[in-house]
Amino acid sequence: MVALGGLGEIGRNMTVFEHAGRLLIVDCGVLFPEEHQPGVDVILPDFTSIRDRLDDVEAIVLTHGHEDHIGGVPYLLRERPDIPLVGSKLTLAFIDAKLKEHRIRPVKVEVSEGDELAFGPFDCEFVAVNHSIPDSLAVAIRTAAGLVLHTGDFKMDQFPLDGRITDLRAFARLGEEGVDLFLTDSTNAEVPGFTTSEGELVPAIETVFRTAPRRVIVSSFASHVHRIQQILDVAHAHGRKVAFVGRSMVRNMGIAQELGYLTVPPGLLVDMKALEKLPADRVCLVCTGSQGEPMAALSRMANRDHVIRITEGDTVLLASSLIPGNENAVYRVINELTRWGANVVHKGNAKVHVSGHASAGELAYCYNVVRPRNVLPVHGEWRHLKANADIAVRTGVHPRGVVIAEDGVVVDLVDGRVRITGKVPAGNVYVDGMTVGGATEAHLRDRRTLANEGVISVVAIVDADTGLLAEEPDFLARGFVHDEATFEDVVPLIEKALAKAAEEGVGGAVQLEQLIARAVGTWANKTYRRSPMIIPIVVDA
Amino acid sequence: MVALGGLGEIGRNMTVFEHAGRLLIVDCGVLFPEEHQPGVDVILPDFTSIRDRLDDVEAIVLTHGHEDHIGGVPYLLRERPDIPLVGSKLTLAFIDAKLKEHRIRPVKVEVSEGDELAFGPFDCEFVAVNHSIPDSLAVAIRTAAGLVLHTGDFKMDQFPLDGRITDLRAFARLGEEGVDLFLTDSTNAEVPGFTTSEGELVPAIETVFRTAPRRVIVSSFASHVHRIQQILDVAHAHGRKVAFVGRSMVRNMGIAQELGYLTVPPGLLVDMKALEKLPADRVCLVCTGSQGEPMAALSRMANRDHVIRITEGDTVLLASSLIPGNENAVYRVINELTRWGANVVHKGNAKVHVSGHASAGELAYCYNVVRPRNVLPVHGEWRHLKANADIAVRTGVHPRGVVIAEDGVVVDLVDGRVRITGKVPAGNVYVDGMTVGGATEAHLRDRRTLANEGVISVVAIVDADTGLLAEEPDFLARGFVHDEATFEDVVPLIEKALAKAAEEGVGGAVQLEQLIARAVGTWANKTYRRSPMIIPIVVDA
Repeated sequence: MVALGGLGEIGRNMTVFEHAGRLLIVDCGVLFPEEHQPGVDVILPDFTSIRDRLDDVEAIVLTHGHEDHIGGVPYLLRERPDIPLVGSKLTLAFIDAKLKEHRIRPVKVEVSEGDELAFGPFDCEFVAVNHSIPDSLAVAIRTAAGLVLHTGDFKMDQFPLDGRITDLRAFARLGEEGVDLFLTDSTNAEVPGFTTSEGELVPAIETVFRTAPRRVIVSSFASHVHRIQQILDVAHAHGRKVAFVGRSMVRNMGIAQELGYLTVPPGLLVDMKALEKLPADRVCLVCTGSQGEPMAALSRMANRDHVIRITEGDTVLLASSLIPGNENAVYRVINELTRWGANVVHKGNAKVHVSGHASAGELAYCYNVVRPRNVLPVHGEWRHLKANADIAVRTGVHPRGVVIAEDGVVVDLVDGRVRITGKVPAGNVYVDGMTVGGATEAHLRDRRTLANEGVISVVAIVDADTGLLAEEPDFLARGFVHDEATFEDVVPLIEKALAKAAEEGVGGAVQLEQLIARAVGTWANKTYRRSPMIIPIVVDA
Repeated sequence: MVALGGLGEIGRNMTVFEHAGRLLIVDCGVLFPEEHQPGVDVILPDFTSIRDRLDDVEAIVLTHGHEDHIGGVPYLLRERPDIPLVGSKLTLAFIDAKLKEHRIRPVKVEVSEGDELAFGPFDCEFVAVNHSIPDSLAVAIRTAAGLVLHTGDFKMDQFPLDGRITDLRAFARLGEEGVDLFLTDSTNAEVPGFTTSEGELVPAIETVFRTAPRRVIVSSFASHVHRIQQILDVAHAHGRKVAFVGRSMVRNMGIAQELGYLTVPPGLLVDMKALEKLPADRVCLVCTGSQGEPMAALSRMANRDHVIRITEGDTVLLASSLIPGNENAVYRVINELTRWGANVVHKGNAKVHVSGHASAGELAYCYNVVRPRNVLPVHGEWRHLKANADIAVRTGVHPRGVVIAEDGVVVDLVDGRVRITGKVPAGNVYVDGMTVGGATEAHLRDRRTLANEGVISVVAIVDADTGLLAEEPDFLARGFVHDEATFEDVVPLIEKALAKAAEEGVGGAVQLEQLIARAVGTWANKTYRRSPMIIPIVVDA
């Protein structure tokens, strides 16, 4: 097996299992770019190592419907559209809606917990797990090489809202059978103790609704059906009507309701028009934008760029996590909302969020129940994988059987033992506007330079005979601080460089452009301590 | 009075008091840029409103030696070098070291808690406060208009390491006299309860030193003398020798030791050379880089770009806060260190940091002791200022007397009541390489575009007679994804635009450049869904 994503990062989860010449893929997600990856929309796993073998792929098993597990599917299906997608009802509904936008009609195989199904040489059994989206599944994969158990994303809420707990009995049964390789979610492995139950948010949410003098505006993940269910129930109990705001929220809640994962009390949901006619203390809005995404509803409200205008006395509830890297964006939104007079309740000042991932305590239970021969921590940065590996060892898994592998590292299971046997390409594949994989690290390096230093374009008309300037060069700078007179000093430097070149018989546009770029670059560095990108253009006259 | 910085942001604190035509400045700091301000080194307060009145400035009172309170001083002194700097011994030593780099020799007035000194019409009294740097002061300012008390940055650790507590008795005495305006630190106003005592970190730090099998590498703020003191004491107790690493750490600890703020057990400090000869379990390094700053010692160790090579069994202790916005950078460092085999202990997995600012509980004590007539929360983003204002009101300050003002808002104190009476410029002044204030919001907008979309430079040689292309245009793209053939399709569009212009008699380089930019821009948007910056250059042939 090899992970093409998800090991060494949180996102673009994708694991490829190989047996008897056939492939089974578990998840195919996207990773969201960081600030040093400007202009990138999303990051995909690198499909290079399986591109020539797409016909060997038996199926893609999707453990649940989050973007970091399904977001890459449209891009993989572009390369072979008829790979069967295997998942639970809600997961398939979410990927289906996504594929519709890409105009792809997938082959779907719906499964539930308890189902056993063979895909080529891979006998799969699906196990219920509890996570921050309903209908999540772990998958046990039996081949002649052994039994693999992949948890997917999970936690072990003992009192989940829908009563669907992580099936520890199934884990135990598989453990009795003998799990040769256990792949477990590392996200919260650094967090001691146990993840709080979703139900324990009720008091804080109740308090918000009980004390809010005017509108309540809730922002959460558009896929967090249980959280939204809680909001709807509390809103209903307090006599408020609810409207969904934001494309993905409206779409996902429509799907969840239609499939029976979201129970909406009759008459609770109204459209915006009806809502506007109600008194403020009977209104609840549920919207997107809890991560400060600039185009989402909540950011636009904060910037007064939305039909919903925040006013004194509104209460805004961010019932969501704060994903690292989003802090500044989220705090900007909170500050602006506060400035307009809103009371903003968030996980920083109230108990309005719990994680969707198992903490160290839950992981220990899993290891002790499963007693796997080998462990491969998945779904995490290095620090998470390491923390998860440490827990495995503490529960008695032999250290030789605990492998921390990065994306692209090939791990083989032979005679019940894991071994690292190779490496395949697993770099970042950037989706950038309409291009997939076109943007390279060199592009990003250029973009960072452009961002930090700006650009100076220099057009020099050079006399073809003398090799000297035929007229004053034209300078055009962007993002580089300059005024009218800035470039006067650099002209003599260019003249000097060209004169020297002419003297030494150096010619040709490319050579002269390099000389000019060097002259301007050196000057900018000396005079401004800046290293702007120089775009030199030599035109013959 | 007016704040030129620090209200609506955490950083560049600067408050200007005016009385009888004279000015007193409290603090003059810098703000560090966020990711949407690329290429900016630091951000200064806008001195515009006092630039013509620098001769009226009696003094600059510096409450303590942190960058966000003293970092702007060199830039203000460039405009008038002989403004007296008033501060405690350590604060003046820190600003002095900084000014030496700028080749400025300031006029200094050293004060201690209890001192009373008049600067023109401003009678100042200095009060001891406890913060994450020693020797911090609050300042009470008496004028004919009333008594103002400015806390500076503070918390109320009842058991600080140096025994120097925030002087609540002085606050009470000033309260008895009658505080007309109370300016209080808002940083932790959202945090319920009380800030933990610095001393409570001992067990966690002890554990690190007791259990570390090999080297201990500690990273913290280079100004956090008490935290470093704790590290030195524990290292000493465990028989380890210590070396300081990183320019600012070496410099500041030298100053602190010389002035008696840092007590170093004899023989504890050694240089790197001597340290390298010791067994790993007798080594402790104290270095900079706790915020993931790319050029600091710790980041360079993480990137294997430092003489100190992290190896299996090293323990790295981040005894520091995690400033919002730095999460990704810090986690990158933690991941890399972990990958090299280090055990990384940080505030996320151990109790190794406490804040330097008063929480809501401490602020309530202050309000109840001082019982001010009017309150102006300072040092915070809107959410912090608002939370602090709410505490003031809850303790009984009349809501009309609690003012949330932003940078530049002029607040007057007349007959014991505060009133907002005007507004002065208080925008961001960017320091960018060698330029101060040269970079504008437009530059930053351009830089963001360059970063996200890239740049395309187009050179079109146009026949002066026909107004049509004399030859194929030259394209040069950076940060924009393209291949060899990319621009072939755009040439006909440029030809078409030029032909239309010629037909309509439109001419002139500027007009043609605009047409070309529009043609290329429209094409990029349609074909790539990208909006690169277009730099068009028309050359007459």
